[in-house]
Amino acid sequence: MKLKRSDIEDLALGASFLGTGGGGDPYIGKLMAIQALERGGEIVLVDPEDVDNDAFVVAVAGMGAPVVMIEKIPSGKEAGESLKSIERYFGRRADYIISIEAGGLNSTIPLATAADFGRPVIDGDGMGRAFPELQMVTFHLYGVKATPMSMADEKGNSVILDTVSNFWAEKIARAITVKFGGVAWISIYPMSGKQFKEAAVRHSLTKEMEIGRAVREAKKSGKNPLDALLDVSGGYLLFIGKITDVVRRATGGFARGEAVIEGLEDFRGSKLVIKFQNENLIAIRDGEVVASVPDLITVVEKESALPITTERLKYGLRVAVLGIPCDPKWRTPEALEVVGPRYFGYEIDYVPIEERFRSMEVGKA
Amino acid sequence: MKLKRSDIEDLALGASFLGTGGGGDPYIGKLMAIQALERGGEIVLVDPEDVDNDAFVVAVAGMGAPVVMIEKIPSGKEAGESLKSIERYFGRRADYIISIEAGGLNSTIPLATAADFGRPVIDGDGMGRAFPELQMVTFHLYGVKATPMSMADEKGNSVILDTVSNFWAEKIARAITVKFGGVAWISIYPMSGKQFKEAAVRHSLTKEMEIGRAVREAKKSGKNPLDALLDVSGGYLLFIGKITDVVRRATGGFARGEAVIEGLEDFRGSKLVIKFQNENLIAIRDGEVVASVPDLITVVEKESALPITTERLKYGLRVAVLGIPCDPKWRTPEALEVVGPRYFGYEIDYVPIEERFRSMEVGKA
Repeated sequence: MKLKRSDIEDLALGASFLGTGGGGDPYIGKLMAIQALERGGEIVLVDPEDVDNDAFVVAVAGMGAPVVMIEKIPSGKEAGESLKSIERYFGRRADYIISIEAGGLNSTIPLATAADFGRPVIDGDGMGRAFPELQMVTFHLYGVKATPMSMADEKGNSVILDTVSNFWAEKIARAITVKFGGVAWISIYPMSGKQFKEAAVRHSLTKEMEIGRAVREAKKSGKNPLDALLDVSGGYLLFIGKITDVVRRATGGFARGEAVIEGLEDFRGSKLVIKFQNENLIAIRDGEVVASVPDLITVVEKESALPITTERLKYGLRVAVLGIPCDPKWRTPEALEVVGPRYFGYEIDYVPIEERFRSMEVGKA
Repeated sequence: MKLKRSDIEDLALGASFLGTGGGGDPYIGKLMAIQALERGGEIVLVDPEDVDNDAFVVAVAGMGAPVVMIEKIPSGKEAGESLKSIERYFGRRADYIISIEAGGLNSTIPLATAADFGRPVIDGDGMGRAFPELQMVTFHLYGVKATPMSMADEKGNSVILDTVSNFWAEKIARAITVKFGGVAWISIYPMSGKQFKEAAVRHSLTKEMEIGRAVREAKKSGKNPLDALLDVSGGYLLFIGKITDVVRRATGGFARGEAVIEGLEDFRGSKLVIKFQNENLIAIRDGEVVASVPDLITVVEKESALPITTERLKYGLRVAVLGIPCDPKWRTPEALEVVGPRYFGYEIDYVPIEERFRSMEVGKA
């Protein structure tokens, strides 16, 4: 299917829920994709089943602390430079552009690049949400190498990495991102169509559009957008409250920190703490973990149900916090080693959010 | 000319004087070059005049804090990996291997790589001494780009950089070197034979061999090796004394610090402080600067006249400190912006060592 402007609006909105606070500002990425359409570009979305096994598939993304992207608004050309550079390296044109993650900027940047370069996009990604590190993709779980990958900055600097592991790719690329000034534009996880079909989270772009559309239509018809969001995402209401404290620091190429929320309505007298590293990682209510990675934790404005990225969390905002089950690919022991709470330094076991809610008798709103 | 084992011994010794304390341990580089000869390799040294204008010339080097190279002894293959990688990138075989600097490891690593890959070496380098940063080469003064450059580590990670300036190459490559564990193996400053002839410090390998030979022969014939060293290098005796303090830290990919030396013999009652960043940068005697970059400051053992690298400076060593005039290419205002004392943070004007000694009436030993 060919994406229209309204599809991109829906997709960007939906992706910002799945972005769990990270993945960059969805507004910037959306504008870039829409501008690419207006320049005459086309964005063709292809079902994974229709991709040839030997097609050459490349993911395009922004890397770094999203807060820097607000200061250094991209021209839209930087990601394209990284694509050109990886194609030059392989001596081969990418048949398909993909997203590494279904979140914020990185859900829409590949669309802008696809439109500019006339390449179709496959309906799927490497996370079904957003995560902060390069090896945190389902591709990694299936043995796909992140490298050769390319990196570009807005000044014209360019790097190609070929590393012995995806962890080394993350480590080295992160250091380069810091030197680039906090943001890098990358083309990564070059793979075959066969690898993509096996390893990707499928139909995440469709899901993004569905979520965005449901919220938009709820508002138009005067329904509660938060209810619509919970319905379409299969999520749980973790909390309603007012943000009373946010601590954050941009360090080592990440935006880390925590937000404290004092309860309102049914949650009056309770307190929720969210810890994040680009994305929301863990939600602790009155001392008890109510959701953790790899499940999704999404903060939205209470009235509008519009998502709030971690860099826009601030004192006084009235918010609702949702927990959404992650893709089943993330729930194996091997996957939890890569993206489970312990990887991020929290000494707790992962419990799927459905189970937590069953045992806690804290039902869906 | 074809280099023999004894030539390499002399060259490594001479280069360790010109290394001014940096450029890595000459012993390791020498062993690698000699082993390469013993494996049947040949090292052919070519005069710059005999190099075709359109020849493809590439410098091979180690990058990082030399102190790490003592801990992580290279296998000798790492630099070759970076050469292979840059040749793959250009789709062209390097006709000649060169040294970026005439100091320690980086004077001999290119010889080992040249022997392993069967490529001739040109008699010249980019410094005529050693310096700590990538843009501190005469090539840079003549507009030669450091990139595309390749980097490799001992684990098998590999990077290609293409930057908008040589300062950006230094900045990004340095961050990668730190992530590599403190040492990277690089192929850099790809250039034409014409560029090399214009921009290089010529005949520095010959000079290294002459210095090494003079010291070796002085010892054999019972002469004072320090006198021989001062004669052949055209250097000045800055100080004789005992090291009483050394402060150093490996930071940001460099070995920085200072050594304090209490005077002996003619210098009794005086104190000399040497500040270094991989290489010795500035020598201050009783509060007065007696030598500074880009002139060479070399510390040797008092009796043997054997050079001491900055990582081997230690309490109690009895040393002589020499100042040697740098290549005239380093004495222009443009060059001093790149390697003068102010670049390294010392608010003093560069004064050629010959002038300092004329005005100070402190003669040659």
